[in-house]
Amino acid sequence: MTAIRDVLIWDSERERAERGDIEIGSDGRITAVLPPKGAKGEILFDGRGETAAIPGLVNAHTHVSMTLLRGIAEELPLMEWLQTKIFPAEDRLLPQHIRSGAELAMLEMISGGTTCFADMYYFMREVASATLASGMRAALCRGITGDDARKLNENLSLAEDFGGREGRIIVQLGPHAPYTVPRDFLARIAGIAKDRGLGVHFHWLETEGELKTFRDEYKISPSEYLAQAGLLDAPKLLLAHSVWHPSDELGRVNRSNVTLVHNPKSNLKLGSGYAPVREMLDLGMNVALGTDGAASNNRLDMWDEMRAAALMHKGYHKDPTLVSARDVLKMATLAGAAGMGFEGVGLIKAGWHADIALVDISGPRYVGCDDRNLPEFLVYSGSSRDVRATIVDGKPLYKDGCFLTMDSQEIVAKAREHRRDITK
Amino acid sequence: MTAIRDVLIWDSERERAERGDIEIGSDGRITAVLPPKGAKGEILFDGRGETAAIPGLVNAHTHVSMTLLRGIAEELPLMEWLQTKIFPAEDRLLPQHIRSGAELAMLEMISGGTTCFADMYYFMREVASATLASGMRAALCRGITGDDARKLNENLSLAEDFGGREGRIIVQLGPHAPYTVPRDFLARIAGIAKDRGLGVHFHWLETEGELKTFRDEYKISPSEYLAQAGLLDAPKLLLAHSVWHPSDELGRVNRSNVTLVHNPKSNLKLGSGYAPVREMLDLGMNVALGTDGAASNNRLDMWDEMRAAALMHKGYHKDPTLVSARDVLKMATLAGAAGMGFEGVGLIKAGWHADIALVDISGPRYVGCDDRNLPEFLVYSGSSRDVRATIVDGKPLYKDGCFLTMDSQEIVAKAREHRRDITK
Repeated sequence: MTAIRDVLIWDSERERAERGDIEIGSDGRITAVLPPKGAKGEILFDGRGETAAIPGLVNAHTHVSMTLLRGIAEELPLMEWLQTKIFPAEDRLLPQHIRSGAELAMLEMISGGTTCFADMYYFMREVASATLASGMRAALCRGITGDDARKLNENLSLAEDFGGREGRIIVQLGPHAPYTVPRDFLARIAGIAKDRGLGVHFHWLETEGELKTFRDEYKISPSEYLAQAGLLDAPKLLLAHSVWHPSDELGRVNRSNVTLVHNPKSNLKLGSGYAPVREMLDLGMNVALGTDGAASNNRLDMWDEMRAAALMHKGYHKDPTLVSARDVLKMATLAGAAGMGFEGVGLIKAGWHADIALVDISGPRYVGCDDRNLPEFLVYSGSSRDVRATIVDGKPLYKDGCFLTMDSQEIVAKAREHRRDITK
Repeated sequence: MTAIRDVLIWDSERERAERGDIEIGSDGRITAVLPPKGAKGEILFDGRGETAAIPGLVNAHTHVSMTLLRGIAEELPLMEWLQTKIFPAEDRLLPQHIRSGAELAMLEMISGGTTCFADMYYFMREVASATLASGMRAALCRGITGDDARKLNENLSLAEDFGGREGRIIVQLGPHAPYTVPRDFLARIAGIAKDRGLGVHFHWLETEGELKTFRDEYKISPSEYLAQAGLLDAPKLLLAHSVWHPSDELGRVNRSNVTLVHNPKSNLKLGSGYAPVREMLDLGMNVALGTDGAASNNRLDMWDEMRAAALMHKGYHKDPTLVSARDVLKMATLAGAAGMGFEGVGLIKAGWHADIALVDISGPRYVGCDDRNLPEFLVYSGSSRDVRATIVDGKPLYKDGCFLTMDSQEIVAKAREHRRDITK
C-alpha cells in the first residue's frame, strides 16, 4: 500500500476539486480517496496542499517515433513537406531508429504528465517493448497502407505478442487512411477487428481534399463509407483528426464505440482546418485529444494541446464561452483512455488504475487558484513545467525532474546519433 | 567585464546561429561577440555548446498588475466578463495590490526569458518602482479614460519622475482607446506627446464593434481618425491588438514610428478576431507581440505567444508557409523594443544592451537542432521551461530556477493575501 498525501484532487466527474489523500494498493489501483492524512502506506508523494492531482494525461493520436524527424523541414506546403522531406526520411528509418524516437517521445510525454498514448507507425514491436520498459500505457497499431497482407499480418502478430501485456498495452488495427487503403481491404481489416475484438485506429478526413474525394469520386457520404466498410462495428474506433466530417453527419457516427480525436496544433500548423468540436461536444460524442507526430506539431505536450483546443474554437467562432477548460481536460484524460479501450483509466476514484499527474500549484501563475477554479487554472495558466510527478499503476515514472524508469542522457545521446544517420 | 561562454547565438539579423562567446562591459552593453572561449572577464554563464543565447523577449502590450485578477472569471461573453467581474474587481485595487500584481507578473516574465515589457494601467508609480527593483526594462503609461485631466497629469508626472531612470524606464502617454477617450482630448494628448517627445500606447480596433462605430457613427476611416487626432505624429505609437484595422488601409499607418502589437492568445480567448498579420508583415511594417493582461490570456509567456502567433494564421488561412518562426522571433524581440523606443535593445551585437535569454537546448525536444534551424526549434518545440537564465544590461535576474533580484516566496505569499482582499 502506498499513498499520495494532501493533494487537491480533480477529475472530469468532479464539479469541485477535493483536498485529500489517494491510497493505492499493491495492484496499482486506487483503493480509496480519503480526507487529508487519512491514507495509510508508504508515502509516495506529499503534496502539502500545494499540489494538484489529476488523472494522467492521454495523448490519443500520435506517432512517437517521428520525434526523430522533428524540424527536418518547416513551413512548407503539405505535399512538398511530405514528399520531399518526410517520406524520404521515413524510408531510411530502421528498427533502432524507431525505438530511439519512441524513447525520446516518452521522455517528453512523461515529463509533462502524460501517462498513456495511442500510436500508429511501423516496426511497432520496438515501440511496444519501449513502452513496457518505460512504464507507460499505450494503444498501439501497425500502420497499414495499400492492400498489404504483410503489414496486416505484422499488426496481428503484434496483437498476439503484445496485446494485454502487463495490462498496459492494447493492440489495435491500424488501417492508415481512406486514401491509402483500398475499400475492400479496409472491409477485410474491419471484419478481422470485429472477429478478434480489436479496436481500430484510422486517420479520418484530415484535409478538405479528402472530403472532396468522397463527394466527387467515391460518390458516397463519409459516414456511409465508414458504415459500409464495417468500421462502425469495430469494438473501438479512433477517428484521428476528423476535421472535415460534415457537421450534419456527426449524428451517424455518434456511437459509444466511436471516438473522435481532435489534433488542434497539427491542424493549425499544417493549415488543415477547424474540426467541428463544438458540435461534437454538443452531441455528447466521445471527443479525445492528441498531439499528432512531432514532425507536425512540434511538441508532444498535452498542456499545449489542451490550451490550443480551448482557445482556437473560441477564436474561430468569436465566442469566448465554447470548448471549456473542463471540456478539454475530459478530452485529455477520460475520453482518450475510454476511446482506446482502457477500462478504469482516466478518473481518480477507488478501483481505478492509479495513473496520476501531480502538478505544482504553488507558483506565481496559480495565485487565486482554489477548489472551484482548478480546471480553468490548469488549462489557461498551467504548463508541463508544473508537473512534479507522473505515475502509472501507482508507480512513479518521473519525479521532480528525474526519470525513474529511463536513462534520459543515454536516450538523448543515442537519438542524436540516430538523427545524424537519417539526415546525412 | 563579464562573459557568457560557448553559446549558440541567434538574433533576427542572423540567417544562421553562431557558436561563440558574448563579452559584456561594465556599462551592461555587449563589447564583442567572439569565437568560443575568446571572451575575457568573469564567466557569468558557461553554455557548453548546449545553450542558445537569444535577445531577451519583449512583451509589447500587457497590464502586469492584472495577474492579481487571473482567473476570477472564465468563459463569459466579453461585456459580461468586463462589467460583472473585471471592472468591479478593478474598483477595489489599491496601490499595494498594483505593486503586488506587478511583482507577480515580473516573476513569471523573468522566469520565461522576458526582459522588457510595455504596460498600461493605473497607480503606475508602483509598477515603475517595482520594475526598477526587479532589474527589468519597461515602457510604462498611465491608462487615461474620459477627458480626465487628473489622469493625464498623473501620466505626465510619472514621465517626469521615472522617465529614463537607469536607462530602463521609458514613460509613454496612455490614452486607453477610441471608445473611452473623446476625440478632442485625444488630440490634446497627441499634441503633448509630440511636444515633449513622448511615445503613445493605445488600444486599437480590438473588436469588430469598434470598426463599426468608425463606419456608422464617426463616419471616418480608422486611419484618418489616427491622422486627425495627431497620433501618427507621436514620436512612437504602439497600437495594441490592431485586429480590425482594414487591410487596405494598413499602408496609411505604415510609418517608421508606428508599431502594431499583435496579441494572439487574448484575441483567441476573447473571440476578438484575427489580426491581418500576414498583410502587415508583407508591407514590412513593424509588428510586435504581446500577451495582454493575465485576466484574458492567462499567461504572460512569450513562448506561448510566439507559438500561437506562428500557428493561428497558418490555420486560419490554411497556409503552412505564412507567419514564420523567424517572423515571430523578430516580433518578440527587436520589433517590440524598437516600437517602445528603446535603442540598442533586441539584438546580440557589439554596442547593444546585454539583454539576453539563455535557453537550454540539450533536452529531448531539441534533438536535431543546429545552427540552421535553431529559430524553428525555439518557436515550435521550445518553451519557457527551457530558459536557464535571463539577463538585463549584463545583470542576471534569474538563473537555474532562482530569482536573483526578487524574493519569489514572499511575493507569492503577499499576492495570495491581496487576492483574497480583492475577491472577498
